[in-house]
Amino acid sequence: MNQDISPLELRYRIRSGEFTSNTSGYSRGFVQGNLCILPADYAGEFLQFCQSNPKPCPLIGMATSPGDYRIPKLGEDLDLRTDVPSYRVFENGELVDEVPDISDLWRDDLVSFVLGCSFSFEEALIDDGLEIRNVTEGVNVPMYRTDIDCNAAGRFASKMVVSMRPMIPSDAIRAIQICTRFPSVHGAPVHFGDPARIGVRDINRPEFGDAVTIRDDEVPVFWACGVTPQVAVEQARPPFCITHSPGCMLVTDQPNSHLAVM
Amino acid sequence: MNQDISPLELRYRIRSGEFTSNTSGYSRGFVQGNLCILPADYAGEFLQFCQSNPKPCPLIGMATSPGDYRIPKLGEDLDLRTDVPSYRVFENGELVDEVPDISDLWRDDLVSFVLGCSFSFEEALIDDGLEIRNVTEGVNVPMYRTDIDCNAAGRFASKMVVSMRPMIPSDAIRAIQICTRFPSVHGAPVHFGDPARIGVRDINRPEFGDAVTIRDDEVPVFWACGVTPQVAVEQARPPFCITHSPGCMLVTDQPNSHLAVM
Repeated sequence: MNQDISPLELRYRIRSGEFTSNTSGYSRGFVQGNLCILPADYAGEFLQFCQSNPKPCPLIGMATSPGDYRIPKLGEDLDLRTDVPSYRVFENGELVDEVPDISDLWRDDLVSFVLGCSFSFEEALIDDGLEIRNVTEGVNVPMYRTDIDCNAAGRFASKMVVSMRPMIPSDAIRAIQICTRFPSVHGAPVHFGDPARIGVRDINRPEFGDAVTIRDDEVPVFWACGVTPQVAVEQARPPFCITHSPGCMLVTDQPNSHLAVM
Repeated sequence: MNQDISPLELRYRIRSGEFTSNTSGYSRGFVQGNLCILPADYAGEFLQFCQSNPKPCPLIGMATSPGDYRIPKLGEDLDLRTDVPSYRVFENGELVDEVPDISDLWRDDLVSFVLGCSFSFEEALIDDGLEIRNVTEGVNVPMYRTDIDCNAAGRFASKMVVSMRPMIPSDAIRAIQICTRFPSVHGAPVHFGDPARIGVRDINRPEFGDAVTIRDDEVPVFWACGVTPQVAVEQARPPFCITHSPGCMLVTDQPNSHLAVM
């Protein structure tokens, strides 16, 4: 399939079951988002958790009311029950199923959240001529648990998870400048250099994703990561929760450039 | 003298000979500039050198024509011959005199340039709650020769000189964000971390200014420095040149915030 497909056309092919894979690289230039769907009883606290931790949990859209499976500002004819290639279903914090459609699981008390994802800033960095190692090496970005406390909100609490991209210092400075323009997709890095300073135990053994090469003249640069709210949800153990499967994102009609604040 | 004196009043006291010292800390909130005065024969090439190297040589004002000693946009009733506490006079690249007034030396072929200085961004960093080590320790910022080539322009060529301020990584990220807003006072840092990567030989022995404490959890952060054009002028060896004496700056009426591009 041509990767330059429009977000709307891509969502239709996902909905019909024709497209079932990772969305990385498709509909380039448009925002892809993390999906988190929770019972209304947990929604207020999760919203507060996102608002209190905007770097790991940048909220770019939310359904207006419980039971609503549309977020019109994110996409024409968008249906959150069918338009993501693969969903993960959790009960009491445990993964119980992975499905291509959640229409049968839908409930009138479910509240949907969409969070920004690093694809948007990686695209902005690549467009500026920077190399993104995980893209070059064709692997998932390495992600690590840290000892940085997020601000707790009700039943949601977590240490911050970070993603890491190695860069030479002058490229890291440029990346900080560019990412500062994109606060709704994790914004500027939270740390660079010594991994131990933020509680990362072994830079070569990420807790999520894949290890990447770090050259002698490079420093690891760390960004707040969207896996953080997933960890917070796992720890809160809500009776029911649905997320996207890793890499199978919600593709929206919003151009990445619309996220730039300056 | 009250440091909160207005720039105009401070210039009058400098002009009258009442104020003769370093201008650091005076007229807080207003831009202070580096002064460089050259014969017209060298002015075009020096202008080109500044335009080609905006990070070390950020031009914030220039006299309209040779012989002109006023730059109205930088200050009311400003007179470049009298309003700087101390001037250095160079002949063929050699320092020959240091004087509080250059009225007697003025010539109709002299072209005046004013370049931005780090006082402005240091103030912005301090206002944001960051510590600037050279300010805390009450010394001049450490400055180093690097192996970074500036773009040559006619007879002007130089390696870049950088200033250094040690910071923990999260403060360095914040400093990069803030300084990006101020391209006309050196802008974002050019490097952080390993000094050898940019040809700095010994971080504890700066070629200009004073060494400062670097703590174990800090990295050196390097900014392009306004000493760079001075080195270029020394190497070009123009028959005649006047600059301000170190720390004795031209105090302008421009608020520092006016330099912010966003």
